[in-house]
Amino acid sequence: MRAVVFEAWKTFPTLKDIEKPTPGPGEVLLKVAGAGACHSDVAVYKDFEAATAPPQLAPSYVLGHENSGWAEELGAGVEGIALGDAFLVYGPIGCGHCVACSRGEDTYCTNAATMPYMASGLGRDGGMAEYIVVPARNLVPLGDADPIKAAPLSDAGLTPYHAIKNSLPNLTGGGKFALVVGLGGLGQIAVQILTALTGATVIATDSKADAMTRAQANGAITVPSGPDQAAQIREITGGRGVDAAFDFVGIAPTIALASAVMATKSRLTVVGIAGGKYEWSFFTTPYESTLTNTYWGTIEDLYEVVAMYKAGQITPDVELFAMEDALEAYRKLEAGELTGRAVVVPHLDR
Amino acid sequence: MRAVVFEAWKTFPTLKDIEKPTPGPGEVLLKVAGAGACHSDVAVYKDFEAATAPPQLAPSYVLGHENSGWAEELGAGVEGIALGDAFLVYGPIGCGHCVACSRGEDTYCTNAATMPYMASGLGRDGGMAEYIVVPARNLVPLGDADPIKAAPLSDAGLTPYHAIKNSLPNLTGGGKFALVVGLGGLGQIAVQILTALTGATVIATDSKADAMTRAQANGAITVPSGPDQAAQIREITGGRGVDAAFDFVGIAPTIALASAVMATKSRLTVVGIAGGKYEWSFFTTPYESTLTNTYWGTIEDLYEVVAMYKAGQITPDVELFAMEDALEAYRKLEAGELTGRAVVVPHLDR
Amino acid sequence: MRAVVFEAWKTFPTLKDIEKPTPGPGEVLLKVAGAGACHSDVAVYKDFEAATAPPQLAPSYVLGHENSGWAEELGAGVEGIALGDAFLVYGPIGCGHCVACSRGEDTYCTNAATMPYMASGLGRDGGMAEYIVVPARNLVPLGDADPIKAAPLSDAGLTPYHAIKNSLPNLTGGGKFALVVGLGGLGQIAVQILTALTGATVIATDSKADAMTRAQANGAITVPSGPDQAAQIREITGGRGVDAAFDFVGIAPTIALASAVMATKSRLTVVGIAGGKYEWSFFTTPYESTLTNTYWGTIEDLYEVVAMYKAGQITPDVELFAMEDALEAYRKLEAGELTGRAVVVPHLDR
Amino acid sequence: MRAVVFEAWKTFPTLKDIEKPTPGPGEVLLKVAGAGACHSDVAVYKDFEAATAPPQLAPSYVLGHENSGWAEELGAGVEGIALGDAFLVYGPIGCGHCVACSRGEDTYCTNAATMPYMASGLGRDGGMAEYIVVPARNLVPLGDADPIKAAPLSDAGLTPYHAIKNSLPNLTGGGKFALVVGLGGLGQIAVQILTALTGATVIATDSKADAMTRAQANGAITVPSGPDQAAQIREITGGRGVDAAFDFVGIAPTIALASAVMATKSRLTVVGIAGGKYEWSFFTTPYESTLTNTYWGTIEDLYEVVAMYKAGQITPDVELFAMEDALEAYRKLEAGELTGRAVVVPHLDR
Repeated sequence: MRAVVFEAWKTFPTLKDIEKPTPGPGEVLLKVAGAGACHSDVAVYKDFEAATAPPQLAPSYVLGHENSGWAEELGAGVEGIALGDAFLVYGPIGCGHCVACSRGEDTYCTNAATMPYMASGLGRDGGMAEYIVVPARNLVPLGDADPIKAAPLSDAGLTPYHAIKNSLPNLTGGGKFALVVGLGGLGQIAVQILTALTGATVIATDSKADAMTRAQANGAITVPSGPDQAAQIREITGGRGVDAAFDFVGIAPTIALASAVMATKSRLTVVGIAGGKYEWSFFTTPYESTLTNTYWGTIEDLYEVVAMYKAGQITPDVELFAMEDALEAYRKLEAGELTGRAVVVPHLDR
Repeated sequence: MRAVVFEAWKTFPTLKDIEKPTPGPGEVLLKVAGAGACHSDVAVYKDFEAATAPPQLAPSYVLGHENSGWAEELGAGVEGIALGDAFLVYGPIGCGHCVACSRGEDTYCTNAATMPYMASGLGRDGGMAEYIVVPARNLVPLGDADPIKAAPLSDAGLTPYHAIKNSLPNLTGGGKFALVVGLGGLGQIAVQILTALTGATVIATDSKADAMTRAQANGAITVPSGPDQAAQIREITGGRGVDAAFDFVGIAPTIALASAVMATKSRLTVVGIAGGKYEWSFFTTPYESTLTNTYWGTIEDLYEVVAMYKAGQITPDVELFAMEDALEAYRKLEAGELTGRAVVVPHLDR
Repeated sequence: MRAVVFEAWKTFPTLKDIEKPTPGPGEVLLKVAGAGACHSDVAVYKDFEAATAPPQLAPSYVLGHENSGWAEELGAGVEGIALGDAFLVYGPIGCGHCVACSRGEDTYCTNAATMPYMASGLGRDGGMAEYIVVPARNLVPLGDADPIKAAPLSDAGLTPYHAIKNSLPNLTGGGKFALVVGLGGLGQIAVQILTALTGATVIATDSKADAMTRAQANGAITVPSGPDQAAQIREITGGRGVDAAFDFVGIAPTIALASAVMATKSRLTVVGIAGGKYEWSFFTTPYESTLTNTYWGTIEDLYEVVAMYKAGQITPDVELFAMEDALEAYRKLEAGELTGRAVVVPHLDR
Repeated sequence: MRAVVFEAWKTFPTLKDIEKPTPGPGEVLLKVAGAGACHSDVAVYKDFEAATAPPQLAPSYVLGHENSGWAEELGAGVEGIALGDAFLVYGPIGCGHCVACSRGEDTYCTNAATMPYMASGLGRDGGMAEYIVVPARNLVPLGDADPIKAAPLSDAGLTPYHAIKNSLPNLTGGGKFALVVGLGGLGQIAVQILTALTGATVIATDSKADAMTRAQANGAITVPSGPDQAAQIREITGGRGVDAAFDFVGIAPTIALASAVMATKSRLTVVGIAGGKYEWSFFTTPYESTLTNTYWGTIEDLYEVVAMYKAGQITPDVELFAMEDALEAYRKLEAGELTGRAVVVPHLDR
């Protein structure tokens, strides 16, 4: 079968023929419906190097950690999965039998350090191929919803969803305010989720005007960059500050911006993995405002993301590519030429 | 001043002249903007009797527990309230110094049994008059929002809000379902609140077709009465049942209906005080589904209701009456001739 | 191998030789350390009948749903389990790939109706044998803690733990009160858990004096049966009532007792599956007091139970039986002659 | 009456005669039982200066923000307070009619900036005198518990209690770990509260050996300072880290220590107001671990502290001083010569 293979550190992936995989015990073979291309793929093949990268990410393997597909073949011991049904794939794959995995939170697997991979497409063969093999428990049923457009939800939907779900107690009730910093794929979906699940006024900001226009269409009030940006945001909240903020960039200036507009008892979540630093002290933060990070999400969260997708509450912007154009998708991603999430569709004719 | 006075048990109230009140220590005199007429007023003056009614409700006093107004005069020790500012009035008045009152939950005042009244208009002079005196802490600022239409929110808004807020943990996240039984004033506002604050699919039912039409306009899916009503509701949820239900009627058949459609880990709140009975057993209820009641709300809740009102998320249906027509409002309320909440407006010309 | 087999409805089990099982894909063969005998086993083999029992419980299979053991052999696809290590077994076994199973809550498996069994020892071969096969994800590591005494924790520990965990928000903070009704195996452990995990005053009651003496040793205040029992309980709480109650009996009189002593905003959980009825109404319950049930627990809960066991916070009372005396354990259980939980120990000499 | 008066910035207080106060509307005159001396008093009179201190703290006024006493006289409008009854005083005094004050959280009063004082003894006459006047809602009944030893609880008890209560969700269930850094008055009570309210293993550290000995007596495991302190703490947790940490010092090294031992999903609360800085980044913190601060507590919290005091779960260490020795108490406090909290007792002969 055709597949996009990450073959060596600091090397652009290759489109090539590899053997079609076979599902092992507890696994399912999926005919791939869609595979999203993510910035973190680029980081993995372009920026990481053997000496410092997590050993779990070492090549060679098929890329693609945002996957959907149709059940094609069941491995030994798998029951209750109907062949032909469409599923969204939960990407992270932990040991499967620790306490974190027991609650469907493979991201925080107790045995992560000794696992040979982190997720589908991250150390283990992913979905940028005609077929993919995943554990049965990683499948979330899509019913009759479109599996192709759904593919990016397994990361670009799940990550903001999980961050927001952790912050919902801060956004419960009338008169709340949320801030979204960074309006790329994850940030846009964050605005959609916040608008759907809370009554909060959603404030959003980005350096690109068109991203802000799309956020407005999704229900946000936008505030442009500039020296009085924090003051403008605070003014929208009546001076009180925002109850929850989500920084999808994660550089020092964005963390500083969010920190400057938090309310008492609020929660600031840095989602973007840029590693920006922030000098915290008792006096820099409103009382009981918390500062935290987060990473991806749980299987149960992904069920809830799918429910929102089916209800029309989340609509990812996608740009489809045929299998043979998969490398072009990564090229455009690197060049910043995409208008939506790139989704590779290996079986356009199905 | 003119006032609607409840003078004797089982007696229709009187519109008469009484002395304009003076604010005591810690109190504020309000020029009344609006006073809502509530079904519980009718129960108090028409159904209750001396032998069985709570002594706190014994006549004589001015009716009206859904009040708003403008600060006119401050009692001794009151500071920080600007004369002329508009406020919504939190109705319940507890002892003010027990643990429940300390958290603004006068409804559950530890000393309720020894208090001489329950609330403004319920044992103590209420707002169906030109002026009313209330404790300063019972005032929630309205800013520049219309105080007249706001009046009913202090009960018809606060009661469903509090019930829903207690159930928000059950409605958190994608793919949830809420049920509203009974679409009078409180039920309609419940639909608005659920639509604004959650991503849940809101299912609503009432015996009146026009009430269901209004609920649809507020964002609900409606299900008519009938032998397969529970089956229809459950089908909308994909068989799983609803995550939270609110019964604003509270008779045995409505409690039975809601009980029949609850999901695992759901919450059924009986808000309507009709006293309907329900035979509960381990086997009648899905696992970890809770059954409970509730009563009115807290001061903080009322701040949040006002925030939703100002944001356009709650819009009460009102029918205005001049002071001299106040008794007509109660007559129409008893006769079921009102199309919205009756609000008496003593100062139409302000 | 020797095993206690439930062979036909309404028939006392048989101790006999059966074939030693082989672990399938994703499964592990355990050499059994201990297998607890539970009242629900008796209900299954003595009271249930084909026409009305869940088909998942139909004989024939090995009894025992409270199991511990040492890993002896790994099925296909299982990694990261060291042979010889001791584990406590999570009993319930759902489909493994629905949303409930994804969070380790197989008790509420979405596909329970189409599953061929409910749990180890409940429709599928259990632990009353020399060996048992269970899914790898059902294993909770015991480290160097005694696996034999631990066996009952998988039900007699997990069930009260889960019920209590759901009620911990009601018991958070100073000045709280908890009530335990029924001081058999689960009730005694409930007292231990409440004493360890909360600062609440624990009130306990049972019809047997010696059970109350043991509860006192575990830190409870006990109140004997009698006409003024509810009044005595309420007096201990200073009139306010209890914040959480756990009824491990579940007959109408025990539910009525607990209902009579609940505080505002409390939670009454009926754990005992006796099916007692309770006539609920708005007026029978303090404001916002919830009534609910519960069933067993989650894998994560069992990890936490094991942590408490290792910390000495839970100490089950056990009475050990050799494999050949297993039927005697059930006989004594039926006759009420046990002083602790009966644990069958197939490998006494290990 | 005799009183300890803070008369001028950077000036040791004076013991002098001043006029006995009179309760205004809504206020109560207390005959002082005990008044605790706190390090923050020293900061106020010794370190602060006019240019930079909050204007609310400007002298002159009576010191003492940890007070208890007997009701002696009621101001206008106060009912339901029995003369002679003992009360602990909630220190913070907000506007009384904003949303924060409505929930008994005067510490976060919306109108704090325009209030003339912050609390009893902090801008307004406190309890280091024979009598004190406080709002009726600031009184928490002590019943027959000793009011003298209770006095410090209003700060040294309430502050750790509130910090811990916010962290209880992190400490819920079996197998949790808590860390207390700094074992002065507040830290010792923190250990007592954690031991009473949770099942967590409590780890504590301080630079003074005798403080660690006392913490051990209160149920903590102690870890001395030193280069491998973080490693030792993490080892106690089995490598996982602590679920909640409380830093009662708040300098950069203590925040760094706590940050180094946090677990995934934990909460680090800096309580000590030393203003230490911490350079936070996505990579310095375990996933979803939160960093926050806190300040004092709520009226409801103080009720719960009193319940724990009455139950023997909190026992403050105190050193009593007669009114005429009050300045000696401050001298010893400055000199570090106290073994417990200094409590001035104006009416030793009562």
